Amino acid sequence: MGKEVERKFLVKDSSYKNLCSGKLFKQGYLLSNLDKTVRVRLIDNKGFITIKSKISDLARDEFEYEIPFTDAEEILQKICEKPIIEKTRYTYNYKGHTWEIDEFHGENEGLIVAEIELEDENESFEMPEWIGEEVTFDSRYINSYLVKNPYKNWNK
Amino acid sequence: MGKEVERKFLVKDSSYKNLCSGKLFKQGYLLSNLDKTVRVRLIDNKGFITIKSKISDLARDEFEYEIPFTDAEEILQKICEKPIIEKTRYTYNYKGHTWEIDEFHGENEGLIVAEIELEDENESFEMPEWIGEEVTFDSRYINSYLVKNPYKNWNK
Repeated sequence: MGKEVERKFLVKDSSYKNLCSGKLFKQGYLLSNLDKTVRVRLIDNKGFITIKSKISDLARDEFEYEIPFTDAEEILQKICEKPIIEKTRYTYNYKGHTWEIDEFHGENEGLIVAEIELEDENESFEMPEWIGEEVTFDSRYINSYLVKNPYKNWNK
Repeated sequence: MGKEVERKFLVKDSSYKNLCSGKLFKQGYLLSNLDKTVRVRLIDNKGFITIKSKISDLARDEFEYEIPFTDAEEILQKICEKPIIEKTRYTYNYKGHTWEIDEFHGENEGLIVAEIELEDENESFEMPEWIGEEVTFDSRYINSYLVKNPYKNWNK
């Protein structure tokens, strides 16, 4: 089990594409509510199931297990709520921290967010200049909410 | 992935205890509704996560994965809906089929049910004489429902 502390930001421009490479992620939810989620995810040729439980607005318990790719595909197609989230994740190391930049596709095309994972809620960090407004506390940006309310339906 | 076809019966007496031995099961649910469940289970020193999705009243898709025992314990205690289901499961082979007899404890003390797993919905089978009334279609006997409405609260 890991404890996950994350902060989330919008992205001002696409500079990150010159700095690092991306991988395609597909993911769906068996369960998603304010307190807990059960997620199934495909990354390249691997499948995963992940349970997250909320500790505070910033922190969550997380349990993740690899499962057979073909099972994960079948669960995504047959059991998870639609639409399935598809995104390209870029991973960028900057001044001692790892940033994950998610470029969404499909029903969420146009949305790009960057996340940083921290050791604890008070840890300081530096931001690349293309990092924009913080949206950690804006629940619209939670991946499981993007299933229920995709970016293309937002009032922008 | 397996397809699961099960029929469920009440039990007339405790003859089964002389025929086979039992193991303690503890299990809880991250999600349970009419169509799908996500279950975490402890058997002896092993932990499991299981996803089931309903195909018909008798048949379900089932995906099961072993996970670390200590993770399973932590998920049961911290994240699953209470009460946790505790039962002793006896496994009895009879005329080419395996029967699982579940003797419930705690909030469901007094409830005993026997299940047989079949290859398909039309497969015939013979029943030991201590098997009673069929309850396959009575949703009160579904394990995840016993969390929401334990046997001790039933009008008996």
